[in-house]
Amino acid sequence: MGDRVEVIAPAGPPPAPQLAAGLDVLRSWGLDVRCAADPERHHPTLPYLAGTDAERAAQLQKAWCDPGNAAVVCARGGYGALRILDLLDWTAMAAAGPKVFTGSSDITALHAVLGPACGLVTMFTPLVASDAMAEPVAQENMRRMLFEREPTLHGGPSARTLVGGTAAGPTVGGTLSLIVSTLGVAGVPAPPDGSIVLLEDITEAPYRIDHFLTHLLRSGWFDTVAGVVLGSWLKCGKPERVHDVMVDRLGGLGIPVVEEFGFGHAEGQLSVPLGASVVLDADTPTLTFVR
Amino acid sequence: MGDRVEVIAPAGPPPAPQLAAGLDVLRSWGLDVRCAADPERHHPTLPYLAGTDAERAAQLQKAWCDPGNAAVVCARGGYGALRILDLLDWTAMAAAGPKVFTGSSDITALHAVLGPACGLVTMFTPLVASDAMAEPVAQENMRRMLFEREPTLHGGPSARTLVGGTAAGPTVGGTLSLIVSTLGVAGVPAPPDGSIVLLEDITEAPYRIDHFLTHLLRSGWFDTVAGVVLGSWLKCGKPERVHDVMVDRLGGLGIPVVEEFGFGHAEGQLSVPLGASVVLDADTPTLTFVR
Repeated sequence: MGDRVEVIAPAGPPPAPQLAAGLDVLRSWGLDVRCAADPERHHPTLPYLAGTDAERAAQLQKAWCDPGNAAVVCARGGYGALRILDLLDWTAMAAAGPKVFTGSSDITALHAVLGPACGLVTMFTPLVASDAMAEPVAQENMRRMLFEREPTLHGGPSARTLVGGTAAGPTVGGTLSLIVSTLGVAGVPAPPDGSIVLLEDITEAPYRIDHFLTHLLRSGWFDTVAGVVLGSWLKCGKPERVHDVMVDRLGGLGIPVVEEFGFGHAEGQLSVPLGASVVLDADTPTLTFVR
Repeated sequence: MGDRVEVIAPAGPPPAPQLAAGLDVLRSWGLDVRCAADPERHHPTLPYLAGTDAERAAQLQKAWCDPGNAAVVCARGGYGALRILDLLDWTAMAAAGPKVFTGSSDITALHAVLGPACGLVTMFTPLVASDAMAEPVAQENMRRMLFEREPTLHGGPSARTLVGGTAAGPTVGGTLSLIVSTLGVAGVPAPPDGSIVLLEDITEAPYRIDHFLTHLLRSGWFDTVAGVVLGSWLKCGKPERVHDVMVDRLGGLGIPVVEEFGFGHAEGQLSVPLGASVVLDADTPTLTFVR
């Protein structure tokens, strides 16, 4: 990661105090931080959006195509990334050359297109203006993933094997409900052959998680998947109920599955790369990066 | 509608008191009521399902293919219809000949496949084991739609024009989140050319409704749609926020749009047919059936 990073708000409006605190964390890492995200800016009629679609798309496009920026860092999720995907000039984005892209939750919609379109690994990390960015453990996990990535990422304290085995391939995924929103949409690539899928979500009841997984399964989305790594399911009801859904929907696919690996909305989250070649060992459980 | 109807539970388990009361309503219409739905039956690990997928699929298949049944009537929504779509023998279902199919909410997933597969108009009505089935107005709307359909269906007291104009075509739709779950799935037909889309939902925040509509729009689902008739958005946040989402997402499509027509989860709901040829007059607003 280089010197200058630009913080943007392509989805929901970032709360001012959390944004200020998150920018300080980035500065504490020695980064030259610019902030295009503006807590005061809202869509004129849809208050959950940090400006009009045209404004948010232009903010991302400008930040990404600025050769002075080594990274573009998302401030907030919520909802809205989906609305700008068709407004971005992906040819220009790809031509802007490699840089780091970070974010999670609603930003999954951007990861799903930006990574493949630009041929890059992107980083599923805490959002700058979020509770996670105030946690020392999640901060340190993010800092290490960006600056000194170790060859093997170990699952967190709750990680456990649902189906054992190993698999190797590129990581794809992010927040489940946003992955679902790619189905049936032209121009969003299916998971590459042998993909290792990372999935997590927040505030989705077990039956809704079942609904999302059933939709993905029926669409054939899992057909090319070689392994599944599940993150946290924060505020998604009783964990044992979510576990039962995972057993029922994913336990019989004949591929390794890990639960509660440690990424996602829950406390002390790991940062994980999307589009990275990895070996999943579901027994250990670990993700080892293939250089 | 003929003499004998069979009540099934292809999704969630019906609460016993509501089911008993609903069966009484059907009997009060002079129907010979059989009930395959069993409030005591649950999936062994997923309590939101009224039995295993195989059991629920077999119950529907048997009821539909029984030549003694003039109608198959769904007891309850919740979640689960999506899970049985690929377990049904659609060739046998189509061969069973015309009969009446009723239900709503999660049952939208069945309407979307059963109607086109069997070449039938299906009925988006209250579920037998639901609060709506206990309301005299919703009951009477359902009874009239099934037994003495009038040539023109008038919008309810809250119906209003969002975009004026007229359009003619077959009705499609139902509950928004279930329509979304058809995207990217082989074998689910896109809306026919000139479709008049009916949409409603329950417990989805305005940003989630935006998410669903944006997904449908990006997938091209609206490309063949000639008119939109919106129902109720019960427990979906402030109605004016939902209205703003509709203006933003649907107001610029260049097709007539009606809000709060009267069908959906809210009190006193209208029953509406899916797959029926209609003329929408968004100014009146009315749906007139083309015989």
